[in-house]
Amino acid sequence: MKRQTALSCAAVLFAVTAVAHGAEEPTPAERAVGYRQSVFHVIAGNFGPMAGMVKGEIPFDAKAFALRAERVAFLSTLPLEGFIPDSRVGKTDAKAEIWENMDDFKAKMETFQTEAGKLAEAAKTASAIDALKPQFGKVGQACKDCHDKYKED
Amino acid sequence: MKRQTALSCAAVLFAVTAVAHGAEEPTPAERAVGYRQSVFHVIAGNFGPMAGMVKGEIPFDAKAFALRAERVAFLSTLPLEGFIPDSRVGKTDAKAEIWENMDDFKAKMETFQTEAGKLAEAAKTASAIDALKPQFGKVGQACKDCHDKYKED
Repeated sequence: MKRQTALSCAAVLFAVTAVAHGAEEPTPAERAVGYRQSVFHVIAGNFGPMAGMVKGEIPFDAKAFALRAERVAFLSTLPLEGFIPDSRVGKTDAKAEIWENMDDFKAKMETFQTEAGKLAEAAKTASAIDALKPQFGKVGQACKDCHDKYKED
Repeated sequence: MKRQTALSCAAVLFAVTAVAHGAEEPTPAERAVGYRQSVFHVIAGNFGPMAGMVKGEIPFDAKAFALRAERVAFLSTLPLEGFIPDSRVGKTDAKAEIWENMDDFKAKMETFQTEAGKLAEAAKTASAIDALKPQFGKVGQACKDCHDKYKED
């Protein structure tokens, strides 16, 4: 429901959004690229510390993990809005296949949302990292499945 | 509580976070800059359409406004983590005064969080843009108060 609403006004978003940097006014497509890249950047910034805990590089902190997982789940609903038509412009790793297979791309994004939501839910009560590893793996796999098909290396 | 947890592991975040772009490995300070700029970018991307509705440039859509407001409220808790010590590096608009007045900076960020939270709450039930204009103005003012003091023009 929320995603539907967001998508329906995506065109509006990139038509009016003020961007803080840059002397030249970016086009709606350039704004869409900047928006989705920023969302992915923030997702990665929160995914990373969870990965560190899963790998044992960082001591497990249940509250911190739960917070990161909640953020990734929330943020997982945002990127799709940035893939407006004809927005494969400038510096982007988005493959043309995204727009040729938008239904599949959306399905993959929804899998990411579903798995990230489950991780956030599990993290609320987990007291050990081992209990979270399987679901964390599913989130990572959802990222990878989409990247393998739709993201330039 | 959540913010505390997040802050306590900010150093960890930027020590381990994998960044998708760039051949050279960024420093923790560079990562922190990229993270906070991305967060602000996504905030602006959701603030913009609300501003458009407030200005009458876009027809009021209660669901869309509520969704944007919820996102801004959620995202408002994220940027502070990116202002780690000694992270005034590279392309940044962050003034040195931030780190000289961190308590004031945090207070201003908390005002932003509070006002954004109130807007999200009000937007859940508002059926006309006029009912949201005063609180939207307070959020904008919270942005401006902090930018005026701590952000390069």
